[in-house]
Amino acid sequence: MNMLMRLSSLVLFSSLCLLSRGQDSLIRYVDPFIGTGGHGHTFPGAAVPFGMVQLSPDNGRSGWDWCSGYHYSDSLIAGFSHTHLSGTGIGDWLDISVMPLTAPLADTTQGIKIRFSHDNEYASPGYYRVTMDNGIRAELTATARCGYHRYTYPQGATPTIRLDLAFHLNWDTPTETHVTILNDSTLVGYRYSTGWAHVQRVYFAARTSSAFTKTILNDGHSASDMSDMAETYDKGKGVSAQLIFNEHHGHIIELKVALSSTSYDKALQALNEIPSWDFARTRKSAADQWENELRKVTISTNNDALKRVFYTALYHTAIAPTLYSDADGEYQNAHGDVHTMPGGTSRYTLFSLWDTFRALKPLFTLTQPERYTDMLNSMLAFYDENGLLPVWDLSTWETNTMTGYHAIPVLADAILKEWPGLDAERAYEAMIKSAHQDIRGVPDYIQYGYLPQDKAGGSVTVTLEYAYDDWCIAQVAKKLGKTADHATFMNRAKSYAQLFDPGTGFMRAKNSDGQFVEPFDPFWSEHDFDKAQYIEGNAWQHSFFVPHDVAGLAALYGSNKALGKKLDELFTAPSVMHGENISPDASGFIGQYAHGNEPSHHIAYMYNYIGEPWKTQERVRQIVDSMYHDKPDGYAGNEDAGQMSAWAVWSIGGLYPVNPAAGEYVFGSPSADKTTFSLPNGRQFTISAQNNSDRNIYIQSATLNGKPYENLYIRHQDILEGGELVFKMGPKPNKRFGRNPETWPGGEGNW
Amino acid sequence: MNMLMRLSSLVLFSSLCLLSRGQDSLIRYVDPFIGTGGHGHTFPGAAVPFGMVQLSPDNGRSGWDWCSGYHYSDSLIAGFSHTHLSGTGIGDWLDISVMPLTAPLADTTQGIKIRFSHDNEYASPGYYRVTMDNGIRAELTATARCGYHRYTYPQGATPTIRLDLAFHLNWDTPTETHVTILNDSTLVGYRYSTGWAHVQRVYFAARTSSAFTKTILNDGHSASDMSDMAETYDKGKGVSAQLIFNEHHGHIIELKVALSSTSYDKALQALNEIPSWDFARTRKSAADQWENELRKVTISTNNDALKRVFYTALYHTAIAPTLYSDADGEYQNAHGDVHTMPGGTSRYTLFSLWDTFRALKPLFTLTQPERYTDMLNSMLAFYDENGLLPVWDLSTWETNTMTGYHAIPVLADAILKEWPGLDAERAYEAMIKSAHQDIRGVPDYIQYGYLPQDKAGGSVTVTLEYAYDDWCIAQVAKKLGKTADHATFMNRAKSYAQLFDPGTGFMRAKNSDGQFVEPFDPFWSEHDFDKAQYIEGNAWQHSFFVPHDVAGLAALYGSNKALGKKLDELFTAPSVMHGENISPDASGFIGQYAHGNEPSHHIAYMYNYIGEPWKTQERVRQIVDSMYHDKPDGYAGNEDAGQMSAWAVWSIGGLYPVNPAAGEYVFGSPSADKTTFSLPNGRQFTISAQNNSDRNIYIQSATLNGKPYENLYIRHQDILEGGELVFKMGPKPNKRFGRNPETWPGGEGNW
Repeated sequence: MNMLMRLSSLVLFSSLCLLSRGQDSLIRYVDPFIGTGGHGHTFPGAAVPFGMVQLSPDNGRSGWDWCSGYHYSDSLIAGFSHTHLSGTGIGDWLDISVMPLTAPLADTTQGIKIRFSHDNEYASPGYYRVTMDNGIRAELTATARCGYHRYTYPQGATPTIRLDLAFHLNWDTPTETHVTILNDSTLVGYRYSTGWAHVQRVYFAARTSSAFTKTILNDGHSASDMSDMAETYDKGKGVSAQLIFNEHHGHIIELKVALSSTSYDKALQALNEIPSWDFARTRKSAADQWENELRKVTISTNNDALKRVFYTALYHTAIAPTLYSDADGEYQNAHGDVHTMPGGTSRYTLFSLWDTFRALKPLFTLTQPERYTDMLNSMLAFYDENGLLPVWDLSTWETNTMTGYHAIPVLADAILKEWPGLDAERAYEAMIKSAHQDIRGVPDYIQYGYLPQDKAGGSVTVTLEYAYDDWCIAQVAKKLGKTADHATFMNRAKSYAQLFDPGTGFMRAKNSDGQFVEPFDPFWSEHDFDKAQYIEGNAWQHSFFVPHDVAGLAALYGSNKALGKKLDELFTAPSVMHGENISPDASGFIGQYAHGNEPSHHIAYMYNYIGEPWKTQERVRQIVDSMYHDKPDGYAGNEDAGQMSAWAVWSIGGLYPVNPAAGEYVFGSPSADKTTFSLPNGRQFTISAQNNSDRNIYIQSATLNGKPYENLYIRHQDILEGGELVFKMGPKPNKRFGRNPETWPGGEGNW
Repeated sequence: MNMLMRLSSLVLFSSLCLLSRGQDSLIRYVDPFIGTGGHGHTFPGAAVPFGMVQLSPDNGRSGWDWCSGYHYSDSLIAGFSHTHLSGTGIGDWLDISVMPLTAPLADTTQGIKIRFSHDNEYASPGYYRVTMDNGIRAELTATARCGYHRYTYPQGATPTIRLDLAFHLNWDTPTETHVTILNDSTLVGYRYSTGWAHVQRVYFAARTSSAFTKTILNDGHSASDMSDMAETYDKGKGVSAQLIFNEHHGHIIELKVALSSTSYDKALQALNEIPSWDFARTRKSAADQWENELRKVTISTNNDALKRVFYTALYHTAIAPTLYSDADGEYQNAHGDVHTMPGGTSRYTLFSLWDTFRALKPLFTLTQPERYTDMLNSMLAFYDENGLLPVWDLSTWETNTMTGYHAIPVLADAILKEWPGLDAERAYEAMIKSAHQDIRGVPDYIQYGYLPQDKAGGSVTVTLEYAYDDWCIAQVAKKLGKTADHATFMNRAKSYAQLFDPGTGFMRAKNSDGQFVEPFDPFWSEHDFDKAQYIEGNAWQHSFFVPHDVAGLAALYGSNKALGKKLDELFTAPSVMHGENISPDASGFIGQYAHGNEPSHHIAYMYNYIGEPWKTQERVRQIVDSMYHDKPDGYAGNEDAGQMSAWAVWSIGGLYPVNPAAGEYVFGSPSADKTTFSLPNGRQFTISAQNNSDRNIYIQSATLNGKPYENLYIRHQDILEGGELVFKMGPKPNKRFGRNPETWPGGEGNW
């Protein structure tokens, strides 16, 4: 896709969204506090969709529940930093912390935490406001690369703004920081740090709406009064700067802070994203961008709580991956190399692939026609720079978090959907490289046909995930006419069967001698990845990850009925874990189904593959109702960079990409009366649930564009055609619907 | 019961137990490490049944999972202290910490932690051994009031023993400590502390097997070398003493430490519980006492894991309450008053009544004929000294932990069972006093007929618990011929009905205006007792506590069937909690049933009251199988001073005291093939499960002493008669068994 095409379709898509503005605003249904309690790990602050800047309050406390800097249970604010991870289970970022003060701090090496109440706090997409107990009101909004602060000081204050480059929490530690004062209202600087991303470099430029009259810089050891405004700098691990303003400047001081991975200069240029000191206008622009996002999938329901859950989820699907490059496509990667994305395209980072390959990335093929090409090409850029596709890219650093090589299903899905702007052969080369890498247990996996537990950890999880990813390669090989590769990888895709134990009905770890690891306890969980046989869970959650071959899995159990029985047991087993070092990630239990973590996400939909769709309908509805709600702890576990939300978006609509690269979406039970996808091609696809209610959760029958529709899934291509899928709902299962095996999903994809 | 009677029945009971010694030892099935992992909070060290001393290793780490001083996940030992709570959710005690060292510590104000491996650790009832990485082997055993340490030092060590009166963790802090060296092998001292028990005084006497040649005392500030052995003392918050021995004394140093609540002198006398330096003999004596305990309830099964679970549970039912008085019955209570229990009887403490009134205390009426009288009278002594019966007595301090006035069901059960040695009229007076106290929300409960949420916290939990306790008073009133009281308290016993919301089918908090508190979310949990409507849980776990009137509860639901449906939902609802401050105590979920905390404990048995006993049989078996196992994390939550274990003892046997004061035990599904109660009257009562297996979990029919038995419960009196209850088990429910409402438990007790 060339630049012109990209622009024209952007215009089309935007105007399409604006056309429907007769309706109420949708952003009012978004509550950015949902996910900031419990273990959701989202942040409440201001960002634009997929922006580089997430300007949000930090409590200044370390701990698992502060991975995003903020947890709803807290009552202190330590500052407002410019980068925040959304929903992750590891904490990092929180770069360039800014705190408004009523007076300069005497001890310039230490920050200060100010108490606040949720009663004095408000957030909506692209906007955050809090009045702290010291009387300062802070308002935040953002553009893609620029944070915009508006501080209103109380009477009698000496307006002061403190930038703290030493501010850090959890895994993150600054390694080198720098501030230069360019003039009486402009600073530049950088913050290098190490943490989850071992190397991270953030350059910034900051400008104030009024001239400061005094500055106090501190290198972490001693303070210096800089009253002459000459160009100065201070180097060290803990640089902070206090900017002090005359009171007569009034009680409002505004501040813009722009970021770049490459240089001061690029950050200074990025300040121009906010051309004038008009906070309201920037806030409105951010809100408009969010409104645009939310218009892409809309629902009808008279249940306002469901609307808040749905639109907040949709909002969270458009936070990550985040923009990494400057406006001209330039970026500095973690190795220190400067590259430029071609043709003004953008580099993205924060690829939480283990989570998001499942439902978020397939959703992007309907909601992010513009940005998705750049995201895909960002993974290929990572491949060019590192020799392998990313597993978990944070600030372009390979964090090697979690298992599998799940860039593959993402690329496969895009290739099979013939995604424009993606070079299929180049992507295929990268995929093949992943499948033959000499790390991450791949040689052992190839040699033994499974990953032996005595060679590396995670035998079951890794084997099943590699097998699925290999199936994805096989499909692409087929499409590209690589027959031999197709056969090889279809064979590898069967690896999961090596670990099935018919005696217990579970997937079990094997050692290199071919024997199952003893003793076996399906409730046992071990969090240490080297020792664990199942990653972040136990045998219950990890025995069903065969999304590409449910029929094959059922054959191992002996029959569809036997697999169905095992799935029933999954949902009714006691919700206990055994072990001395149990993973906290498995949560949100229905029996041993654990919605709070990704390995369970597809399982409720599996009944469709074995002729028991009403059980899917019942369970999906139960999961939507119990695992999501509209309070701060509204997620059942880590939101995980959009995956937990994408599950809700799909499932409330009535669909789910069980096999994310199969080009088909399997039916659940729509919670919304009507769900409309506004497609980039200008068409609309609507899913209606007639006679829908809390009791009428079972699909009685379906029509597509007025004609009877018997399949238990719909093809991606059919959605792109536009039209209407209508479900007739009722209070009792109609076991005739979906009885015919020809209507079941599965097989080698529906392209 | 006079002293003579007590002694004669003790002899009888002991000899009875010894008669059956042809069998294997049972203590080999006890693994004291079960419960030291997960959140069980038990300790692995040495004690005799209900002893004052629990001599056990401490990791020296604070935290919820270190409430007993030790958690299996840890790898450090900081010392061996003499008092340990078993299974509680709050940490205290850990008095008189002793640590063997290979050389005196230079910094005498600080202790030291030594690494160890579980490979070098062993424990059995009354005995604990560890070889630490510094080469010192520590062996521990105990008598009732005396701990016995045996330290084997490695070659080249300067044998040193450090007593640390400053050692403290979690809630506990020493307030005043004291050491006096009496001679070259004897010390006395005390440790006063504040914590969960706000006032606690422990006097001790210590004697070493060899003379020490040097001592270093430290008051927490400075050290002094005491080479002359003169009587010395050191006062302060942090007294420690290092005793240093000549190497030529050999590599083994033994140490006895005895405790008393009253004085040095009594502690010195208690040293005589171990008359000679014969560690093996003391260890054997402790083991024999445990073997005696375990003989009281025995099971037959070919499942060794079940035996380990059962006998370890039975072991844990004989740890608390713990002995508090000296050998002559004297004790000093938390107010500083010295009292003497009459006629050489014993005072006990550590009454975790909210937990143990349910199943542990009723079990004592079968297993503790000797000690139970003293335990009951200890509660009356508490009443005499404090004006109210205890709620949670720790070291005779009223900690006011948890809710209800649950000394009442304990006393009521004993009175109704005509327990010898308990003055019923005196106990009744105390019970009435509790029910009219002017604290703990009782006046509001009386005024409104329920505890309004806007008057005090815990509206639902407290109201339901008071209502049950009031029913217990009514039964005693009836027995004692107090007709008016009977009517009054039967009326109060109906209070639960005030809070039933037919709209949602849950018990809900009401404010004083009579309105339900809004909004309502049955999944909501709040740990703050002042704010919580349900204590340590949510509406699911707390809507069924009506053990005295299940028929009345069913009537509120509209029918037995409707209540049955709600119970089914309880076991299948998603296992999620909502809230910002969720109680960690609710755990061990099957749906919303939470076996890890007490409010759920009776619920699986409730199906018996509504004609669906097969559902009880199915659930009880599932709970036994999933919530207990023979690893360190073998309990699904806090062991809670014997309650979690008592549940297992009853349930593995096939029974449970749903209403602990009804004199009847309701049938579940026996996991053991045979369970034998060796009764204090010399008789045996046996429960046999014929054709029992993992699949044959349903009762098909029953006989009592050879005659068909139709009831779904057995009376306490029938058990005392001795005999045999035989269940015929099968793989499918026999819905005819227990179909007749006349066979159901409930009503006004079965006396």
